[in-house]
Amino acid sequence: MKLRTLLPLLILTASPALSQDAPIIHDGEFEYLRAQFGAEWDTQDAEVDARLAEIRDANGGQPPNFLYILIDDVSFGQMGDRKMNYVMGIETPNINHLATEGLSLMRMYTEPSCTPTRTAMLTGRHPVRAGVEEVKVALVGEGLPASEVTLPEILKQAGYNTAHVGKWHQGDIEESYPHNQGFDWAAFPLHQQVQLSLMTPEAMRANNMLGYVPEGQNNQFLLDERFKPYGLVTGVEAEAGGMAREIDMAAGEVWTQAKYEDMNLRYQQQVLQQLQRVAAEDAPFFLQYWPLYPLNFVYPDQAISRNGGFHADKLQLLDGWIGDLLDALEESGKADNTIVVLMADNGLMYHYEGTSGLNQLIYRGGKTQHLEGGVRTDAFIRWPNVIEANSAAGDIFHVSDIYTTMARIAGATDYIPRDRVIDGIDQTALLLNGEGHGRRDYVYVYEGPVLRSVVKQEFKMHLPAPGQPGAAAPTYNVYRDPREQHPLVGYSLWAGASFQDMVKRHQKMIAKYPHSEIGTGLPYEGIENLRPESELARETFMSWQ
Amino acid sequence: MKLRTLLPLLILTASPALSQDAPIIHDGEFEYLRAQFGAEWDTQDAEVDARLAEIRDANGGQPPNFLYILIDDVSFGQMGDRKMNYVMGIETPNINHLATEGLSLMRMYTEPSCTPTRTAMLTGRHPVRAGVEEVKVALVGEGLPASEVTLPEILKQAGYNTAHVGKWHQGDIEESYPHNQGFDWAAFPLHQQVQLSLMTPEAMRANNMLGYVPEGQNNQFLLDERFKPYGLVTGVEAEAGGMAREIDMAAGEVWTQAKYEDMNLRYQQQVLQQLQRVAAEDAPFFLQYWPLYPLNFVYPDQAISRNGGFHADKLQLLDGWIGDLLDALEESGKADNTIVVLMADNGLMYHYEGTSGLNQLIYRGGKTQHLEGGVRTDAFIRWPNVIEANSAAGDIFHVSDIYTTMARIAGATDYIPRDRVIDGIDQTALLLNGEGHGRRDYVYVYEGPVLRSVVKQEFKMHLPAPGQPGAAAPTYNVYRDPREQHPLVGYSLWAGASFQDMVKRHQKMIAKYPHSEIGTGLPYEGIENLRPESELARETFMSWQ
Repeated sequence: MKLRTLLPLLILTASPALSQDAPIIHDGEFEYLRAQFGAEWDTQDAEVDARLAEIRDANGGQPPNFLYILIDDVSFGQMGDRKMNYVMGIETPNINHLATEGLSLMRMYTEPSCTPTRTAMLTGRHPVRAGVEEVKVALVGEGLPASEVTLPEILKQAGYNTAHVGKWHQGDIEESYPHNQGFDWAAFPLHQQVQLSLMTPEAMRANNMLGYVPEGQNNQFLLDERFKPYGLVTGVEAEAGGMAREIDMAAGEVWTQAKYEDMNLRYQQQVLQQLQRVAAEDAPFFLQYWPLYPLNFVYPDQAISRNGGFHADKLQLLDGWIGDLLDALEESGKADNTIVVLMADNGLMYHYEGTSGLNQLIYRGGKTQHLEGGVRTDAFIRWPNVIEANSAAGDIFHVSDIYTTMARIAGATDYIPRDRVIDGIDQTALLLNGEGHGRRDYVYVYEGPVLRSVVKQEFKMHLPAPGQPGAAAPTYNVYRDPREQHPLVGYSLWAGASFQDMVKRHQKMIAKYPHSEIGTGLPYEGIENLRPESELARETFMSWQ
Repeated sequence: MKLRTLLPLLILTASPALSQDAPIIHDGEFEYLRAQFGAEWDTQDAEVDARLAEIRDANGGQPPNFLYILIDDVSFGQMGDRKMNYVMGIETPNINHLATEGLSLMRMYTEPSCTPTRTAMLTGRHPVRAGVEEVKVALVGEGLPASEVTLPEILKQAGYNTAHVGKWHQGDIEESYPHNQGFDWAAFPLHQQVQLSLMTPEAMRANNMLGYVPEGQNNQFLLDERFKPYGLVTGVEAEAGGMAREIDMAAGEVWTQAKYEDMNLRYQQQVLQQLQRVAAEDAPFFLQYWPLYPLNFVYPDQAISRNGGFHADKLQLLDGWIGDLLDALEESGKADNTIVVLMADNGLMYHYEGTSGLNQLIYRGGKTQHLEGGVRTDAFIRWPNVIEANSAAGDIFHVSDIYTTMARIAGATDYIPRDRVIDGIDQTALLLNGEGHGRRDYVYVYEGPVLRSVVKQEFKMHLPAPGQPGAAAPTYNVYRDPREQHPLVGYSLWAGASFQDMVKRHQKMIAKYPHSEIGTGLPYEGIENLRPESELARETFMSWQ
């Protein structure tokens, strides 16, 4: 809590580090690269600036719009590729087509779970720096702190209209809500799909959640009725600075699969409406669509895919919706000056492998894990007449780079804070010049607050157990062994020391710029129509605090 | 041996089963399908015949040529796909391009190892029916029996010129040699890459074969010097009916990695020469190229791929060679009337996963295994102006279908024998009409002589242990669970009985048409210039027989 009270003071202080003439503070590893490539990058950057100015001039002085689509829990290869479609027995023709219209980032690293990936994209930082871990399903009284400077906040400063539709998962406290973090308008659920789709009578009957709903079992010894989350707020809508309003739920109403499906449909309709709204304005826009599907834990009454699994089938459905959204963008007349990014936030929920229809397709592991299967996702970027169609890049990219790169393209780099470490690298040169122009060859991979592995070039070291030397760390070549199953002892013997140096550089920067803490507060503040059961849930939650 | 002596008699007998008016004898499962779809297929077949006649008329009355390229030990996804290229850090642009020019068969099943897959393609039958298992690296005195009627034999009857270049692996007895099995000309090694690439001083030093060559260790207790294969015949060349001649090896010469690389280069040059020869003739041709690469067990002095593993790097090299071959086909003027098939014979040598640079990319398992990783391979078929470019089919195909389908297209169906079970299904309708026109939804998967699994539609049952009921068999949905790791008990409960019925139908047909036996004889007969060490090896081999 000490840091949290200190932070606003820090921001108000006119320290040299806050001057926008100061360089962005990057991690030690990036400086290590800049020492080797700085001159070359400076030359490239002058060309990048010229090209961005040219693009802006060709669009009436407007920087590009952004449509950022983030799909939940889909592993690398599970969308956007016909061959893998055949392997899985699903069809994603719209995403496949989008992939052919732009750049496929073949080494996009995310964080291993929903909350951290989204925080990294929003803040340009590893979420651990703001104390953010995966936000739990129930009440937590925590969330993305106001002290973080989000991408929509800096884009707004550069004149952008902003809107968020869909999953948010950044906490249940007022400062964490999207309309308090840079979005002009937002529709989002307070929690996530575990509450919304897994904790339903239908999912219980589908045998995935036996015991959650009271009908699931008859327990005469039961005391605590709040061990099973209760009375949680569902979907809300709000405008920047205003109160959020829960919609489509009456007091005492039971949340069901049908209501979840309605919510998904509603977000799809709302993203179309928001697109229409922002496209009609003169200002550039940043529109964010974070669908809840494919997550869903009930088999469809009528499968639309050959696979039929409850995630796979909804992924195919979602593909059609994305097609509709891209069509609407086309019809809006703004497609040519809009950068579309579509990616996943992390790997599949491997816990439901088999029944969900998704599986560890290429990389091992999934959501929550530092393995490639947890943190490698598909990412497609379309920028008409700028990014070459059907191109691909094997350069390493981290989701936090979206922050720094979009800021650069929007002309908003000056608004990136200079008082903290920014992990996101400006990758604009890669987008403009293609493969081989990436500016990172490393990624630090966390699971929550724990650094679990370090990626450098084609090598990946899983951190050794505490106290063990670097030579004891299993090290993999991700080209030869994408499933990280054959550590070669020789690798660690030569690379162990270099990897440990990387860890040290990273730790020294943390010592210099210590982590701040997650935002905390009373859950559900700023919601104007809390249901009685939500009030009760909050009271129970606060009972011991 | 009884069956083997009976077989020639059977063939000479003018039994009704031998009349070419008689239908081809297929397995029970196919008849089960024909009972459901026969009328529809008859209608389709009339259209297929009309279309084939039309194609022939458009080509001066000539049926199409065939160029059949079979790559060794490459799993599904490891070639022909840019995305997977990025995963693996290799480039196969020529095969990727070929894939876009024709039909990708997304469910091609092979046998799980080199010899059986090649036998199945050559004979249209599961190799177990002819007693064929994997041919060992050393002397065996066994091979593909003369009684089998091979695809080149029936194509020759229909007027084709034929040639074989590269790996053969069908035995070391005279009747098994390609020039005695239907090929006008053949260049091939008597054995396979374990001898040619793994049993070299260089591979030993690369730590893959420690102990094979005498320098590898000093063992004062050693008696048997033939436990390590010795004096094996290497590459030979021959014309139909003639003697084979070993080339490029002098008496006493040591086989080395350099000689292996020369052999690979030579086969590449020879397939180009053979293409020139057969393309210059009026008759249609069947040209078969079975490269030895990517197998090779020594790291390249200079890697050409990002991967650098000894198989992966050679796969990239081979891709360039295939590009050259396809260019030569184009230059020959025969490309338009030539069907090019490129596929792999089975999954990777997972034994070398990690160092080889190949890995169990999508499906689990590899060479020698009944798992999808062992028997699912890429297969691309290009037929200009007939097969739709960049098309794909999820229909099940088995490598034995190549036999029956090519025979149909060549107008050689009448030469398919009617006295034995032919497993290969005529899939011409699928090639002409595209996805959804396949004629099998099942495959029996053997490991050597043992039936290990049965595939039906999206389901795959691993056979239960002997004596166990069908409900005890693990059953998988290959769309939802391509790695066959999550057997669902409910599947076996409902599908177990149906799968057991399939096994029974298969067994009943075996009882009706019993397996014949593998050809046997004196190794190396029909080679005109055996080196003294090869003579010695043969003498030692025969010592106890």
